[in-house]
Amino acid sequence: MFRTQICDILNIEYPIILGGMVWVGRADLVAAVSDAGGLGVLGAGGMTVEDIEKDSEIIKAKTSKPFGLNVPLARPDADELINAAIDCGASVISTSAGSPKKYTALIKDRGAKAMHVVSAAKFAKKCEEAGLDIIVAEGFEAGGHNGFDEITTMALTPQVASSVSTPVVSAGGIADGRGFVAALALGAQGVQIGTRFMASAEAAAHQNVKDAVVNMEDSGTAITGRTTGGPARCLKNKLTDMIVAEEAKGTPPDKLMEMIGGGRSITACLDGDCDEGSIYCGQIGGSITSIKTAGEIIADIVSEAKQVMESLNSL
Amino acid sequence: MFRTQICDILNIEYPIILGGMVWVGRADLVAAVSDAGGLGVLGAGGMTVEDIEKDSEIIKAKTSKPFGLNVPLARPDADELINAAIDCGASVISTSAGSPKKYTALIKDRGAKAMHVVSAAKFAKKCEEAGLDIIVAEGFEAGGHNGFDEITTMALTPQVASSVSTPVVSAGGIADGRGFVAALALGAQGVQIGTRFMASAEAAAHQNVKDAVVNMEDSGTAITGRTTGGPARCLKNKLTDMIVAEEAKGTPPDKLMEMIGGGRSITACLDGDCDEGSIYCGQIGGSITSIKTAGEIIADIVSEAKQVMESLNSL
Repeated sequence: MFRTQICDILNIEYPIILGGMVWVGRADLVAAVSDAGGLGVLGAGGMTVEDIEKDSEIIKAKTSKPFGLNVPLARPDADELINAAIDCGASVISTSAGSPKKYTALIKDRGAKAMHVVSAAKFAKKCEEAGLDIIVAEGFEAGGHNGFDEITTMALTPQVASSVSTPVVSAGGIADGRGFVAALALGAQGVQIGTRFMASAEAAAHQNVKDAVVNMEDSGTAITGRTTGGPARCLKNKLTDMIVAEEAKGTPPDKLMEMIGGGRSITACLDGDCDEGSIYCGQIGGSITSIKTAGEIIADIVSEAKQVMESLNSL
Repeated sequence: MFRTQICDILNIEYPIILGGMVWVGRADLVAAVSDAGGLGVLGAGGMTVEDIEKDSEIIKAKTSKPFGLNVPLARPDADELINAAIDCGASVISTSAGSPKKYTALIKDRGAKAMHVVSAAKFAKKCEEAGLDIIVAEGFEAGGHNGFDEITTMALTPQVASSVSTPVVSAGGIADGRGFVAALALGAQGVQIGTRFMASAEAAAHQNVKDAVVNMEDSGTAITGRTTGGPARCLKNKLTDMIVAEEAKGTPPDKLMEMIGGGRSITACLDGDCDEGSIYCGQIGGSITSIKTAGEIIADIVSEAKQVMESLNSL
């Protein structure tokens, strides 16, 4: 059921990929997603080479199935992280927020599969030229950094799928079987899911963060960084209220960065301060009403997707 | 094929509703959509009672099938427009940008069906309390005015569908059979489509506007009015560049309104000036590559939707 080209390329059972989540997507969650038939992906944003080595050992002790690593290309040591991950057994490297050309050769020469995240069809075409194995089309509703063009999953997925022949994975706004089937209908061959897995038993996020996702509504996120640091979707809280208000006032980026300071993701994800910390979170978080294990999440997506198909076929 | 509750409520063949489009959705387009089995809806934003009477005569001369009227509730004479439309045979009234409670009793007492457009689940609950027959969940990718919460179709549709038992129609980002099936998978029982029908033979828009939609890319729209007049998605042009730049500079709303002046939709839609005029347009416009008749658009959506279902069933 729901076996696509993505399953063959990544050697997985279901075309469901864990989005790379800084401080959240660590060994336990990655192992659980992979073991349940999806692709677990380490969120290397805040990780060192040593972290990757340690986490990979834990993953390999828990499952023999494939896993991957996501590297934001803003990291100046991205090549070291990629090499370390492949040395440790990662078979897929996902890159984002930078040129897809930069590391594709390195990744593919070392025998791993290369995925890149895009926010518009023009970038997808560049990925195809660069020889990427999989293109992730991530919409504006997704948590974390997203594109300046603000193109949504519903608009982006079919336009990317029409513009390239490389297999496309849809990301942003997907948390259940409804979104999974919708993404496949739009022309994707798989989905990448972040927020739903943030509210999982195995996620490294603080319990307060998981509870905040369970309690949020559809309108519970905000874009910060429209004028400072690049747009990023976060769970609305005291911090985002402050940032949005300062940006609206025209506070200069450097002054605002000073006010925000560093480590705000750690404040939330590790220390559990959901007022003063930064929590990357997608709009679909409003549909999440309980914390489940990653295995339950994947099983539920697949079983709900079957029901959705039955219901569509009955029309 | 694809017969849902929406078809029974509206007495139509396919659950495809024409979005209300000011200066664009006039008699010829409304008649063509209805005659092809969807629901044609007059975009009454710029219309007088006399316009409604005239257009209704044309529609009824062209088709015996049901048609509707969309009224932005910003119009102080909304009740007159609604009464005129029902007098003239409209069987469905769609309202937007205001309280769903205000005219529901009037519409239903007169025997017409009442639909209201919402941008977040909290508003959908209010529609259900108000007794609306159909709730239209319209995402951030849609052309024209949209909600301050910027919730996208992919995130909004399932969250609205889960929060009410009233039938839901999905709008924003839908232009073909892929989007149609995706919307149904997300829990909607139908779709509302604007931009795709703007680039139709029967649309009242100037040929230059239709050509501009055919030539745009997925990143070809911008939100204006984030600080002035309320957010609205438009085709990017000289006018939107100016507005976005002034808003970023913090130009006061009244001064910016003075710079913009009135009638900018007329400048584009009727006079064909696509630089200085305002063209409401959704992100999915980038997927539109030719002008078709409304009948062809509907037939193509249905036939592509069948192909999408075959492809999903083969997985």
